[in-house]
Amino acid sequence: MKTHTEYLYFETKKKRDYMNITNQVEEAVRNSGVQEGLCLVNPMHITASVYINDDEDGLIQDFDGFLEKIAPYDLKGYRHHRTGEDNGDAHVKRQLFGREVVVAITKGRLDLGTWERIFYAEFDGQRRKRVIVKIIGE
Amino acid sequence: MKTHTEYLYFETKKKRDYMNITNQVEEAVRNSGVQEGLCLVNPMHITASVYINDDEDGLIQDFDGFLEKIAPYDLKGYRHHRTGEDNGDAHVKRQLFGREVVVAITKGRLDLGTWERIFYAEFDGQRRKRVIVKIIGE
Amino acid sequence: MKTHTEYLYFETKKKRDYMNITNQVEEAVRNSGVQEGLCLVNPMHITASVYINDDEDGLIQDFDGFLEKIAPYDLKGYRHHRTGEDNGDAHVKRQLFGREVVVAITKGRLDLGTWERIFYAEFDGQRRKRVIVKIIGE
Repeated sequence: MKTHTEYLYFETKKKRDYMNITNQVEEAVRNSGVQEGLCLVNPMHITASVYINDDEDGLIQDFDGFLEKIAPYDLKGYRHHRTGEDNGDAHVKRQLFGREVVVAITKGRLDLGTWERIFYAEFDGQRRKRVIVKIIGE
Repeated sequence: MKTHTEYLYFETKKKRDYMNITNQVEEAVRNSGVQEGLCLVNPMHITASVYINDDEDGLIQDFDGFLEKIAPYDLKGYRHHRTGEDNGDAHVKRQLFGREVVVAITKGRLDLGTWERIFYAEFDGQRRKRVIVKIIGE
Repeated sequence: MKTHTEYLYFETKKKRDYMNITNQVEEAVRNSGVQEGLCLVNPMHITASVYINDDEDGLIQDFDGFLEKIAPYDLKGYRHHRTGEDNGDAHVKRQLFGREVVVAITKGRLDLGTWERIFYAEFDGQRRKRVIVKIIGE
């Protein structure tokens, strides 16, 4: 049995941003030497998501618009802000898009469908964030 | 250590549909010979979800009604449609219900609670879709 | 390769409640002896979630308010209630917050970010519920 751990770092220029990180995760799989197994990818922060969907600009705008409509940035709208924070919306957005993905590794590669791409979704960016890639298998 | 991979295929008659696939996944676990481990199940498409909840018709209608209300089918409502697609709603619905489930395998069986059932939720069907079952353990 | 299974039990006093269970999961990891691997945590019930976010009271109130607004308790509002149940809202809330988390284990510990805490979210409580912790690795 093999295990492998990598940490990726991202700092978005915008407060909210959506980055296709499939290539970085694929490289971690190559580095692991695992041929058959599972690959976990998650932000180590609680105002970001890792999710899988299409890399299409209009769709990403749809996602962002949907999340901002349902859980808008609102300085007065969240009890969390009594702690001095202003990112209550980002915590809710992250809950809706989820924390992590687990992806199958088959024959040494991420076993993704034709249009599946791994995204890092930042909801409170402009600062350095960390993503863990944990791989186990053989 | 053992690993096992199966691909399941589904083609729903309706555009949106919810199928209990617990038996197919359980069969993959039997085929794997794994006694203790983890079982990942996910669609390899980005307009479908695999989730776990109750197999009760009224509840499934509630789920479908909730998703259609919050992210309705709307030809003019999604920027994604500038690419010629009409399924922006299906991508959002999939984000809300998530992509995958990871289920424990204990004593050679899916270690599910009394009412836990694995569902394939199709949000843009009437075409052939693929689901991967990846099992690792011993 | 090692595997380890524990079942945790919770009975909340309130119908909806949010409990930080990080310490219990960390203890299961210690009990497993696994140094490098994956840890799955999920309720074995379909009206509860296990999720990861901040342990901050205001934020938890925000989460609860958000869920109750988007999927309110409503005796007449869910088809699921034709079966005699009254917890349709709890099933929808669980879908939005997800079922499970998968957490990396590194050097014998949960590899969590600074503010990541594992929560058991109960949406239909006041009765005994079970959570599985399944650990695999080496």
